[in-house]
Amino acid sequence: MIRKLAIIGAGLIGGSLALALRRAGYCKQVVACSRSEAHLKRAVELGVIDAYSLEPAEAVRDADMVLLAVPLGAMEAVCRAIGDALAPDAVLTDVGSAKASVVAAVSAAFGEAPASFVPGHPIAGTEKSGVEAAFPELYQGRRVILTPLAHTRPDAVRQVRAMWEVAGAVVEEMGVEHHDEVLAATSHLPHLLAFGLVDSLARMGERDEIFRYAAGGFRDFTRIASSDPVMWRDICLANSQAILKVMSHYREDLDGITEAVQQGDGDRLLEIFQRAKAARDRFCH
Amino acid sequence: MIRKLAIIGAGLIGGSLALALRRAGYCKQVVACSRSEAHLKRAVELGVIDAYSLEPAEAVRDADMVLLAVPLGAMEAVCRAIGDALAPDAVLTDVGSAKASVVAAVSAAFGEAPASFVPGHPIAGTEKSGVEAAFPELYQGRRVILTPLAHTRPDAVRQVRAMWEVAGAVVEEMGVEHHDEVLAATSHLPHLLAFGLVDSLARMGERDEIFRYAAGGFRDFTRIASSDPVMWRDICLANSQAILKVMSHYREDLDGITEAVQQGDGDRLLEIFQRAKAARDRFCH
Repeated sequence: MIRKLAIIGAGLIGGSLALALRRAGYCKQVVACSRSEAHLKRAVELGVIDAYSLEPAEAVRDADMVLLAVPLGAMEAVCRAIGDALAPDAVLTDVGSAKASVVAAVSAAFGEAPASFVPGHPIAGTEKSGVEAAFPELYQGRRVILTPLAHTRPDAVRQVRAMWEVAGAVVEEMGVEHHDEVLAATSHLPHLLAFGLVDSLARMGERDEIFRYAAGGFRDFTRIASSDPVMWRDICLANSQAILKVMSHYREDLDGITEAVQQGDGDRLLEIFQRAKAARDRFCH
Repeated sequence: MIRKLAIIGAGLIGGSLALALRRAGYCKQVVACSRSEAHLKRAVELGVIDAYSLEPAEAVRDADMVLLAVPLGAMEAVCRAIGDALAPDAVLTDVGSAKASVVAAVSAAFGEAPASFVPGHPIAGTEKSGVEAAFPELYQGRRVILTPLAHTRPDAVRQVRAMWEVAGAVVEEMGVEHHDEVLAATSHLPHLLAFGLVDSLARMGERDEIFRYAAGGFRDFTRIASSDPVMWRDICLANSQAILKVMSHYREDLDGITEAVQQGDGDRLLEIFQRAKAARDRFCH
């Protein structure tokens, strides 16, 4: 049970968790903080949170669980703002998509990362953002990755794990660096490719026409290009090393495909397409 | 009204058209031909076609409308096989994804493209293939592009247009070359990027693990990598020039994004992401 959950950043991710925990009766009080009072009022109206504050320090006072759900670029400033107000027993966790950068931000703000800090990342979300898009089933069957540090308190990890499990998630643990590499491959790189493709086509001229002939496949393929640009800028800056590594592999493979098209090498193309189809059919049914 | 529709190639595309036309009572008889008797028998059982033949020439005899729905690489051979059996008043059309190559194949088979030949391309489909995936609503509200040649008979174009409109499609006309450039950008390039990404990740080792953390965005992004590898090999070979041109633009843009990540240039990344999101939200709502 959580007595008071403080959510810093009132959007889709924090809002959906709040809805799930409240519905399960797992949380007595949810207080949120954000820079937009309009968003916070809306969150209260929608029954997502009980109360709000525009001051992070105010929001976290007496909270036993604090969830940082702000863009990666805002993590350090938020941690500095709440530092003095955090209760000694409070567990601190986050939902950032790149863990090394959050650990660095928290460490910079606190001198070192508190033993009660459990870095976390729910692998869930839609291309929509904002508290109005929140829904309690968002985490049902989704994975949440926790990347505790060597000195993180086991009971803090247990509490964060229990919270996500109540929301329906499957919780796993892995190292910070490994998380960042896996996510660079399965999430960050695809977003860059989709943003890049849509921008590329939009600038080819005749964009009004080109998109008219986009079929269902194109819509699915580019859905992630409707994601929040600020969030994705922050992710690219925060996880640049892992992204560049996986981008470099991908560009080599794209060179190979381009070469096969140039040379009219049907056997090579077929081999690549068959391997890709088999992998996708196996893992994403 | 169509008296006898002959479909060469019994899959999702031809099967869905047959279902739509039969439901509308627009077609007295549908006869299909394919290399697999099992698929043809299944098509009869499913009520998609009335009869079948394993001989293309037999299937098209007395047909007033002939639809070529075979992979691009099979177009020329099929045209050679049906040439002598085509009725003088028969309208010939196709569903190939790259029009210059179909026009070249038909021209090679017939000496020159018949005046009754109307190149066509329904911008519809799913990542599934085969007649069992066929459904009559596939073309509802979808675009079908016809690329008639200078000497194509206007009444043949009218008949093909009418057929697709009965199936619910929005029919447009454009030039062969323009079609191939637009489709290279909105369909062929995205498929190559998706096939390439899935193959790239699958070969990074730990593939079992990597795909476990793929979220909804990844599934959507890579759905088209589950498409038929043979069909896509043929498209890459048939439309290589237009694909290479658009790939070259895209790779330049990807270079720019990679450079921005390398340099930590958040402003440039944000600009690209915002432009892409605005374009997609506008055209693919």
